[in-house]
Amino acid sequence: MEVTRKEAAQLLLAADDILILCHRNPDGDTMGCAHALQHGLRSLGKRARIRCSDPFPSRYSFLWEGEAGQDFAPRFIVSVDIADEGLFGEGLADCLGKVDLAVDHHPSHRFFARNTLLEPDSAACCEIICLLLREMGVSLDRQAALCLYTGMATDTGCFKFSNTSPRTHRLAAEMMEAGAPYAEINKRVFETKSAAEFAAEREALNTLEVHCGGQAALIVLSRELYSRCGVTEAELEGIPSLPTRLEGVEVGITVKEREPGSYKISMRSVKRVNVSDVCRQFGGGGHRYAAGCSLSGSLDEVKSAVLKAVEAALA
Amino acid sequence: MEVTRKEAAQLLLAADDILILCHRNPDGDTMGCAHALQHGLRSLGKRARIRCSDPFPSRYSFLWEGEAGQDFAPRFIVSVDIADEGLFGEGLADCLGKVDLAVDHHPSHRFFARNTLLEPDSAACCEIICLLLREMGVSLDRQAALCLYTGMATDTGCFKFSNTSPRTHRLAAEMMEAGAPYAEINKRVFETKSAAEFAAEREALNTLEVHCGGQAALIVLSRELYSRCGVTEAELEGIPSLPTRLEGVEVGITVKEREPGSYKISMRSVKRVNVSDVCRQFGGGGHRYAAGCSLSGSLDEVKSAVLKAVEAALA
Repeated sequence: MEVTRKEAAQLLLAADDILILCHRNPDGDTMGCAHALQHGLRSLGKRARIRCSDPFPSRYSFLWEGEAGQDFAPRFIVSVDIADEGLFGEGLADCLGKVDLAVDHHPSHRFFARNTLLEPDSAACCEIICLLLREMGVSLDRQAALCLYTGMATDTGCFKFSNTSPRTHRLAAEMMEAGAPYAEINKRVFETKSAAEFAAEREALNTLEVHCGGQAALIVLSRELYSRCGVTEAELEGIPSLPTRLEGVEVGITVKEREPGSYKISMRSVKRVNVSDVCRQFGGGGHRYAAGCSLSGSLDEVKSAVLKAVEAALA
Repeated sequence: MEVTRKEAAQLLLAADDILILCHRNPDGDTMGCAHALQHGLRSLGKRARIRCSDPFPSRYSFLWEGEAGQDFAPRFIVSVDIADEGLFGEGLADCLGKVDLAVDHHPSHRFFARNTLLEPDSAACCEIICLLLREMGVSLDRQAALCLYTGMATDTGCFKFSNTSPRTHRLAAEMMEAGAPYAEINKRVFETKSAAEFAAEREALNTLEVHCGGQAALIVLSRELYSRCGVTEAELEGIPSLPTRLEGVEVGITVKEREPGSYKISMRSVKRVNVSDVCRQFGGGGHRYAAGCSLSGSLDEVKSAVLKAVEAALA
């Protein structure tokens, strides 16, 4: 059932030995939520730990610096920024059907938890965690502020995208005042690339194709490119925002090869198209302006299926 | 003499037929300031117009949409975001020594006006104009908010850089509430490139050289590249932020060929080096983390002079 922020706070205050779940292929928002929540719960004397199917990218190591590991059998499970149990990933299969509280901001959320705190107007799930921790009486120190700022910044393209609200800005200002080293975070998250990433991005741009009379642009990231440049998919997380930078493009598509014959699609919309709707046709989802789905087949089949759906959405 | 915000407001309220000056090679901040101030002054029934040595880039046309031209002999001259008369450019030579009020945020400001409102803690000069207009009793409508948001966003790399303050975020939130179409502005200013710009940026990245044991990286923009790709220098304003994205780089240098044997240098610092100090050695200036200067000589001479100064600053 849906709960209010106050009810969610009461559930957490009453709980202990709390396991926090992140979504697979973790981004700054799910990691920021989890680490801020873990830090806040521990500051109240509770035991808390985090699990995720995929390893956390080292780029974000500042989120967990100085936090000790804790080992315990969980008695309460919270998921953060997870819209759907399908995003748990294989490593969290044992948690399916066992979530006590889901905190999320995705409009496409599919209720899977005993209790759900859903605030779809929040640009980042970290906004909700920020207000939830405050509701719980946790005073936000530098470490919590750093985690929460990271989620707010990463989910909004550093306050650039349409999901950013005046509240996002005001909460970011508070996180800065609480000591979040924002410039270092932004530099590390948005503006630092290894020589390998630099090279891979240049190569990825060379695959750019324009379709639908200039309204769609598509980039392909092949496993061959990953291995030749020595980069992982997670290190190229900025690529999906590149195709829409081309003037006139309404929908940007990034086709990432996962395994031979298996592709992850990241879709971005500039304005007109709801790409969450497009991706839902393939069993995916997300937000109006940023969504994703998975497809199987040859590269040509996958591209043509996706482009057909995008063309229909553009029409 | 230096004046307070209140005194500057009184000067403007007492004046009429006001000419507003932008710096040459205009950026989002100087243009945002000028158009917000013009709009605000006109809303008080005053006549106001803007001059700049260089044409305003069409990318920013939303700043002046719907504003009519006004012709009058100026009786009061205000400069916005201009640190030094050297930045007037040739087209404003007739205004040298005639500025009644300079509004600026550059710590390197060289007092040249009869009255100066200098607030070096402001990330963008638009923050000062915002508070100045409010002091004058101007209510900020959508058009003013749009101009002011643009300056705040562009001078902070969309709230990413260390100059961003909690106040910048809070003022941006207010501009959003006043109707600034922030997502469209950010898309247009930060994330829209023509096919030509796309190609030019890719080529520019190919010129990237690493120096000083990996702590300096340098990109060269030649006139030949501009003409081959069909782009202007103004269209490549994002290039100077690219070299510092390479991991380990402390100083990013962009060498732009202006005329044969004449180069404009844009320098960016990640943290340790004050590039304003480095550029001042060549008669330039700016901020600690972003500065510029001009040099003459062959490309090799210019590169070696700049790299020597950067190396000394890194030592």
